[in-house]
Amino acid sequence: MSLYTTPVLNINLKKLIKNFELLKKLSAPATAAAVIKDDAYGLGAVEVAKTLYTAGCRHFFVAHGAEGAVIRPVAPEAEIFVLQGIGEDSLEFFKKARLTPVICSPVVLSFWHQNQIAGIKPAIQVETGLNRLGFTREDLEQLSPEELNSFSYVLSHLSSADEPAHFMNERQLTNFQTIKNRFFKNTPATLSASDGVFLNKEFHFNLTRLGAAMYGINTAPYRENQMQNIIELKAPVLQVKPLKKGEFVGYSATYRAPVDMKIAIVSIGYGDGLPRSLSNHGKVVFYQDNHPVFCPILGRVSMDNVICDVTNLKDIKAGDFAYLINDDQTLDDLARDASTIAYELISNIGKNPRFIKSYTR
Amino acid sequence: MSLYTTPVLNINLKKLIKNFELLKKLSAPATAAAVIKDDAYGLGAVEVAKTLYTAGCRHFFVAHGAEGAVIRPVAPEAEIFVLQGIGEDSLEFFKKARLTPVICSPVVLSFWHQNQIAGIKPAIQVETGLNRLGFTREDLEQLSPEELNSFSYVLSHLSSADEPAHFMNERQLTNFQTIKNRFFKNTPATLSASDGVFLNKEFHFNLTRLGAAMYGINTAPYRENQMQNIIELKAPVLQVKPLKKGEFVGYSATYRAPVDMKIAIVSIGYGDGLPRSLSNHGKVVFYQDNHPVFCPILGRVSMDNVICDVTNLKDIKAGDFAYLINDDQTLDDLARDASTIAYELISNIGKNPRFIKSYTR
Repeated sequence: MSLYTTPVLNINLKKLIKNFELLKKLSAPATAAAVIKDDAYGLGAVEVAKTLYTAGCRHFFVAHGAEGAVIRPVAPEAEIFVLQGIGEDSLEFFKKARLTPVICSPVVLSFWHQNQIAGIKPAIQVETGLNRLGFTREDLEQLSPEELNSFSYVLSHLSSADEPAHFMNERQLTNFQTIKNRFFKNTPATLSASDGVFLNKEFHFNLTRLGAAMYGINTAPYRENQMQNIIELKAPVLQVKPLKKGEFVGYSATYRAPVDMKIAIVSIGYGDGLPRSLSNHGKVVFYQDNHPVFCPILGRVSMDNVICDVTNLKDIKAGDFAYLINDDQTLDDLARDASTIAYELISNIGKNPRFIKSYTR
Repeated sequence: MSLYTTPVLNINLKKLIKNFELLKKLSAPATAAAVIKDDAYGLGAVEVAKTLYTAGCRHFFVAHGAEGAVIRPVAPEAEIFVLQGIGEDSLEFFKKARLTPVICSPVVLSFWHQNQIAGIKPAIQVETGLNRLGFTREDLEQLSPEELNSFSYVLSHLSSADEPAHFMNERQLTNFQTIKNRFFKNTPATLSASDGVFLNKEFHFNLTRLGAAMYGINTAPYRENQMQNIIELKAPVLQVKPLKKGEFVGYSATYRAPVDMKIAIVSIGYGDGLPRSLSNHGKVVFYQDNHPVFCPILGRVSMDNVICDVTNLKDIKAGDFAYLINDDQTLDDLARDASTIAYELISNIGKNPRFIKSYTR
């Protein structure tokens, strides 16, 4: 008798490298940088950075100074850009770990001038239509030629690159080209994240910033995913029991059995990052005779458990594993059922400390 | 000039104790146990357990064996119940940390019989209508009198205790009383979590399991919250900029400015556990002349940033803080705007490693 209670998360670093290599090829001749902010989308920044550094990656993007400091030991010679910029609460990380701030405004630039770090040439972010971080055209006009020449990269970010026909793509490209020609003639440029890589070469400039697609998410959903899934998340069945016609399942009794059924209680819930919006909606995958069987989630997802309909599974028992994410139910599939995007899903799941987490190397 | 980049989370342990004391009073003469599974709903199991142990709490509930082992050092004499039960992957934690499994089925009971730990008397969970974990009546009928007498507590869980008029409350109470009278005459019993505490005394039995309400969530939403908010979450403004009429904000350009506006880019996003469902929907709070000003979130919440409308704030600047959760916008308020429950919200937020996390003692 084998009984388990803990969810298990595996991340395949071999496939991560394959995804990176493919995106790098699509990006060439632009340099391929890796985006490992948010603990590498929850998958483990140190493991991911180490893997990619070994595979030759020398440019990394993180959101926060603290995140940059975490990966510096495994990426000693890399340039590590910090997208949220620099402040009093992160200055020490920049100094110790030799991080490169991405400067988003005249205010942050003043701060940088007062706190410069020898040998570090910051990048500058410019506004092209996303209306998130970045210098406006009016801001740029206030900078001296020396200031304009003091940046290692000029950076902007696309709002709608996952929809090639979206009007924002051309608009932002034109704005970026205009700004570059006017203010940053000789400064290397970077505009595209993973989704921009699948647009045409004009969007690539000198450096692409590879994140979501590298982690297996389809950032070009208008065509089949070219990336490999790198995540396997499974959780053990704690109990299998009959559910009689007319009985209810879960909090607030939102599911009522229309016929006699069989249910499995699986040891994973929203406390593990599994979205509660999968209630009465998502599916877990079991395997029967090596074929996937998609079993609907019944009632509400609770903090530690999810209940599913296993009426059609003949041999299921406690100790068997239900699969939440794998090649048969990808991150994108589960995110769709949860009415969100795979980015948010994996960010909440990946960081969870309750999993038995492992890496395939 | 003060610039910051990192979100800041504070948890008020003084108020936690006050909430616990009030719930304990409402529970008396039943014993008050603390539920600190899921890393104390993300707020830090060790800190919370230490605080409550010092305040006299001697009964704790966690979900997983590993979670029990984490708090054992700060709760040396407490009884620590493990709700997800016991398996091969958690057996060592039970042995080392002297944990008490909650047994949910005959299969798990067999496992326990093969792996008993001297000095530990398990609890038993019974099915009363939630159709989650628990022995069915048919299962119980198979147990010998000796087996039935071998448990420290008989436990079940209410599905709908946050709605006092819900038919499930009476149904589950009756089922629980029937099972107790038939099988567990002399075994102490526990049925209610926080929400059940606010139902009448019949639901309290010998032990109540205090979780959500202790953390400030209103588990009796049919009346005003008697609990104190214990959480303050704030994030710095990175940039303030104009947004011209007709311009768009954020991914997929889902917000279009109907007039000239002013926006603030705040350094927190779904990568920090802030639900993406707040896109174009939630609010952040700023303070002007000591009064809260609720500023709508514009466009999509992104991984590291949220953009909000600060047109009506005269003096806002980079380095100011936006409040996401505090006494003016509680967990319940933010969860409502995110179309979820405060339990899921705090579980995703609390565990995030990117915050500067502090405790008020």
